[in-house]
Amino acid sequence: MSRNPIDLSLYLVLDPDLCGGVEGMVRTARAAAENGATVVQLRAPGWKKKTWLEAGRALKAALAPFKVPLIVNDQIDVALAIDADGVHIGQDDLPVAETRRLIGPGRLLGVSVSDFAELASVPAEGVDYIGIGPIFPTGTKPDAGAATGVAGFAALAAATTLPTVAIGGIKPGHCADLFAAGAGGVAVVSAICGQPDPGLATAAIAAEIARLKA
Amino acid sequence: MSRNPIDLSLYLVLDPDLCGGVEGMVRTARAAAENGATVVQLRAPGWKKKTWLEAGRALKAALAPFKVPLIVNDQIDVALAIDADGVHIGQDDLPVAETRRLIGPGRLLGVSVSDFAELASVPAEGVDYIGIGPIFPTGTKPDAGAATGVAGFAALAAATTLPTVAIGGIKPGHCADLFAAGAGGVAVVSAICGQPDPGLATAAIAAEIARLKA
Repeated sequence: MSRNPIDLSLYLVLDPDLCGGVEGMVRTARAAAENGATVVQLRAPGWKKKTWLEAGRALKAALAPFKVPLIVNDQIDVALAIDADGVHIGQDDLPVAETRRLIGPGRLLGVSVSDFAELASVPAEGVDYIGIGPIFPTGTKPDAGAATGVAGFAALAAATTLPTVAIGGIKPGHCADLFAAGAGGVAVVSAICGQPDPGLATAAIAAEIARLKA
Repeated sequence: MSRNPIDLSLYLVLDPDLCGGVEGMVRTARAAAENGATVVQLRAPGWKKKTWLEAGRALKAALAPFKVPLIVNDQIDVALAIDADGVHIGQDDLPVAETRRLIGPGRLLGVSVSDFAELASVPAEGVDYIGIGPIFPTGTKPDAGAATGVAGFAALAAATTLPTVAIGGIKPGHCADLFAAGAGGVAVVSAICGQPDPGLATAAIAAEIARLKA
């Protein structure tokens, strides 16, 4: 495959409400990229595509100077329209095969799973990383399944050869356990989005991760 | 352009609730195609894409024997995944230029407008037809604007050289006025979806249109 490897270590998933709309999202993403976020995902289930497009373009421009990849959740047409670095799909979105066919060989593709059955359904080819969660109960994705806990995450991560990112209710202080459990990274939403200083919040988690990797 | 001309005369927009889910949609679409519908649009704002894909594939297979084109509303990725005949976009969806770039030159593209400003914003190139409405108040699209009435429709239709289809609250008996006002066709939702016999309901409107064209 022709894709660059992805550094999953601090993966920010933007929340439109917590960030306060498009402008707040872009501000949050820029602050996070400046302070150690390694990936940013645009996710806005309630938005119409005109707004997705507007936000996607602004985010791409904001992240480009930091070489932080922009991943688009679910909306493959939007990802193509803005030439995003990748897409992330869940179990109710377009399947992996159709998604890979639409995005071509050069874009990153992540898939969310919450249990062993979902993990087993992910094809061996064409996927770059697995999102596993929710690890802890979370308020930012009301339709998420039951929390796996750290042990549940470890068991799932051990069952795949793909890099994994842990998601769901992750706060500063959780990184050590999750990296020890095999995580290639942690994905956060409310630990950065809507924080009084998103840049500072990012820097704190990035420092925690840097210590673990040292 | 390499697209076939589209016969807009009896344009069915499927409603997932009125039809009773995927299976009911496919049944309704097949009955309508058998009885004179000339275009079918898949529209399901609340659905996840896995379900869009499932419905889209089943509809494409059901409509193929009748050579009735299948148009996908808003979800361009789904349209590409199922190789739909075309897409239909509204004012809050991806813009015309981005949509045409994604769907290529061979697929049909329709655009909804409700007033002169929206009509004026539609590019001269790359669009195959204009949907104008709502003509009458309608319950199947809660976010639709104010009704244009037949005279309002006529004024809008006269302001474009593109073929037009009238939509919004259209019932049997409305066709004569709308075709006289310049409509290339009528788009219906609840006049077919959820009717006791959707095939019979379609046939009645098709007969009305045939008389007007005779």
